[in-house]
Amino acid sequence: MLRLQLLLVNLGAKSVGVKLGILGLGTVGTGTVQLLQDREGRHPLLQEIEIYRVGVRSLDRPRAVELPPSVLTTDLEAIVNDPAVDIVVEVMGGLEPARSLILKAISNGKHVVTANKAAIARFGAEIFTAANQAGVYVMLEAAVGGGIPVIQPLKQSLSVNRIHAVTGIVNGTTNYILTRMQTEGSNFSDVLADAQRLGYAEADPTADVDGLDAGDKIAILASLAFGGRIHLEDVYCEGIRQVSKTDIAYAEKLGFVIKLLAIAKRVLAPNLPGGKVAPVLSEPGDGFATNPSGLTRTIAKRQTNDHSQLSVRVHPTLVPQAHPLASINGVYNAILVEGEPIGQVMFFGPGAGAGATASAVSSDILNLVATLKTSTTNPNPLLTCGHDDYAQIAPIAELVTRFYARFLTKDQPSVIGNLGTCFGKHGVSLESVVQTGVHGELAEIVVVTHDVKEGDFRQALAEIRNLEAIDSIPSLLRVL
Amino acid sequence: MLRLQLLLVNLGAKSVGVKLGILGLGTVGTGTVQLLQDREGRHPLLQEIEIYRVGVRSLDRPRAVELPPSVLTTDLEAIVNDPAVDIVVEVMGGLEPARSLILKAISNGKHVVTANKAAIARFGAEIFTAANQAGVYVMLEAAVGGGIPVIQPLKQSLSVNRIHAVTGIVNGTTNYILTRMQTEGSNFSDVLADAQRLGYAEADPTADVDGLDAGDKIAILASLAFGGRIHLEDVYCEGIRQVSKTDIAYAEKLGFVIKLLAIAKRVLAPNLPGGKVAPVLSEPGDGFATNPSGLTRTIAKRQTNDHSQLSVRVHPTLVPQAHPLASINGVYNAILVEGEPIGQVMFFGPGAGAGATASAVSSDILNLVATLKTSTTNPNPLLTCGHDDYAQIAPIAELVTRFYARFLTKDQPSVIGNLGTCFGKHGVSLESVVQTGVHGELAEIVVVTHDVKEGDFRQALAEIRNLEAIDSIPSLLRVL
Repeated sequence: MLRLQLLLVNLGAKSVGVKLGILGLGTVGTGTVQLLQDREGRHPLLQEIEIYRVGVRSLDRPRAVELPPSVLTTDLEAIVNDPAVDIVVEVMGGLEPARSLILKAISNGKHVVTANKAAIARFGAEIFTAANQAGVYVMLEAAVGGGIPVIQPLKQSLSVNRIHAVTGIVNGTTNYILTRMQTEGSNFSDVLADAQRLGYAEADPTADVDGLDAGDKIAILASLAFGGRIHLEDVYCEGIRQVSKTDIAYAEKLGFVIKLLAIAKRVLAPNLPGGKVAPVLSEPGDGFATNPSGLTRTIAKRQTNDHSQLSVRVHPTLVPQAHPLASINGVYNAILVEGEPIGQVMFFGPGAGAGATASAVSSDILNLVATLKTSTTNPNPLLTCGHDDYAQIAPIAELVTRFYARFLTKDQPSVIGNLGTCFGKHGVSLESVVQTGVHGELAEIVVVTHDVKEGDFRQALAEIRNLEAIDSIPSLLRVL
Repeated sequence: MLRLQLLLVNLGAKSVGVKLGILGLGTVGTGTVQLLQDREGRHPLLQEIEIYRVGVRSLDRPRAVELPPSVLTTDLEAIVNDPAVDIVVEVMGGLEPARSLILKAISNGKHVVTANKAAIARFGAEIFTAANQAGVYVMLEAAVGGGIPVIQPLKQSLSVNRIHAVTGIVNGTTNYILTRMQTEGSNFSDVLADAQRLGYAEADPTADVDGLDAGDKIAILASLAFGGRIHLEDVYCEGIRQVSKTDIAYAEKLGFVIKLLAIAKRVLAPNLPGGKVAPVLSEPGDGFATNPSGLTRTIAKRQTNDHSQLSVRVHPTLVPQAHPLASINGVYNAILVEGEPIGQVMFFGPGAGAGATASAVSSDILNLVATLKTSTTNPNPLLTCGHDDYAQIAPIAELVTRFYARFLTKDQPSVIGNLGTCFGKHGVSLESVVQTGVHGELAEIVVVTHDVKEGDFRQALAEIRNLEAIDSIPSLLRVL
């Protein structure tokens, strides 16, 4: 009886906390700790995560987050070696000691969440081989596209597709610079200097403006989308230093905008004339009649494995103005995935920043926790429906929104005044009133309101409908 | 010894095939079967899926897919009752018998993948309660946004966020109609008739143009984003029949486009003045000193559970032209999710169509198979790195692309001819050559090529650089 009780206590303790060892408490680490400490209104599974150790460079630095002194340590090696740690969260950045600590964590059987695109792009083969051998997961949603879910969709939702191309604006700094050059007609060097002053570009902007950061990211995306490892030195990188305001202006006249694109695309090997795939079996009918599906598979396999190559590259590109990527401006990122049968899907959002990156890091942690809890008797809590209360829905009369309304009225000078009086009586404040034209005997008046409660607006309208000068109210639309 | 062997054989057989029972072989069912039968170049896990039974209305109809006669049956009830079936894929649509078959499958312990937004929006509570009781999954990626991964990101990647709003263009038919009304200045009824002729709108367009389909979808999205069930009758639906070309034109002048938006948003209950949240504990300091975190949690919980409501609605909306949703045109869908700390992320892609929907259905099936195979000794094959070969990367010289190049040259009439000759010699065909201006003594010439191999283009350039009339080539950019 006592033994059973002890066992239950142990099981209870085990099921409560998945212990994190976080390496680094800079911008991303701090954002992640803040998110994990502030759980209300987020997924309830976050309650099962314990911030067990956080490795920092100095214990004395002032912090934006409160952590018990026992959690903070400068001994990062001890974190990845601590048997109590379940998941190591590497948010320190840089190549070393990040790489060694990740490998050590893996060899100790710990799962890893990392935001480190530079380390993954360079040491991904080593890291994932070690992870497969140790039977642990390495999650990297934050490595590309900041908070945009793109790694998980590529690995899961889109992996039934044959991917043809992944094309992204994956570096916010260069997109910010190009957007400002375009809207202001400014030179690269002037905008760069200003971006550095505003904190949108680093003091040493090389990794961003020379396309190297984007190169790391497209290497990772290519690897996931096409299922092959990438030698980073095979990725062609050209940055935006040479892009001039003159070219941006000419491009615009030709119908283009200039964007730094990271592109990974399946291409046919060039050794075949016209880029065509040669038939693998030249004798007509050879094998086809006896084993059609076998033959088809052989040809298809040759297509992907023998004659197919990837083109993986980063360079400033003239993008047609109607292309989905042309309108991605400022520090935003977007990744366009093309495949069969999906066609085109695009993921858009903030490509950097503490909050966005913390969202990605935390979602990886949550996914790991969910996966670790999944068994034949425990369904994955992220895939099941976890709520059974009905939400309270506000009636439409309580909606607070702006309205657009079009009136047809008698063409009398007093009409606008009368409209304004009716609206005012019901607390409806007007942003603009324009008499837009005259239709025969009738005047047309378009009104846009400030934010107003829909019920109040409707009451005002009911009164307005009774005004002698009002013919009709043909349109009533809400404004976002 | 014999017993062990038998056991191994059984385990082997079990691990090979996850058996699907597909209900319906219309557009989506056919697309799904086609995808599942054509596995080359897709995720290798698809090889473990067996199309075991497909339920159809008539066995005699000609089909676009080949299936053994033993797989096809008109007895749908038998499929959901067949002990061999692991996953039931409901792609028949409609309310009944879809609902009853889904519930029967669940009660028989089968996992369910469905594309049926109408059934989920109406019977979701019943279906998910049954699924939780039976310990099975019900997957519905295809129910909203066609092929766009949005259900899985909401359930997984974004669930660490506090979601503030989900705003979507989730009905392709109405977006197609509004886009054409806008670009052509046409009337609703004319465009609708043409859309029906072209197959973009149904003969009875009610569900689309009156916003009911979008209402089903936003009810599902709201439920996932905010973690509460939704009574469909609480969702306010207003369609686009009343939108006139006049209003589209006025909206444009005011800086807006008109879109049918489906909106789910957290709002504060209106019983508190100014929308402010009243403090739960009015006595200053009450409890705070002794239990600060407890107090914070109480207030926060009240905020979400007591004073917070959802606004869930579908209506035509004036959207500012710079808003990310304003440029979503034609049959495309997009879903914008706003939350903390993520900010804004948007998912864009084809909202309907056999291929896109088959992608979503198949990705759900794949995710189920991966989840079912996951255990402490078998990591989830969708989360691990499944490749260890290096991809073959084409050198940049082999890239085939269009180029933009800007030349500064002596202002001589023969220059353009000389450029053309050099390019022609290396097989570079020109799309346009424009002398754009004169800079002092020098003329400026902008060239855009047709598709050309980068190596050939570079050779031509090397020769051009040696032309006596060429001063410099300040810009060289690729064109998407």
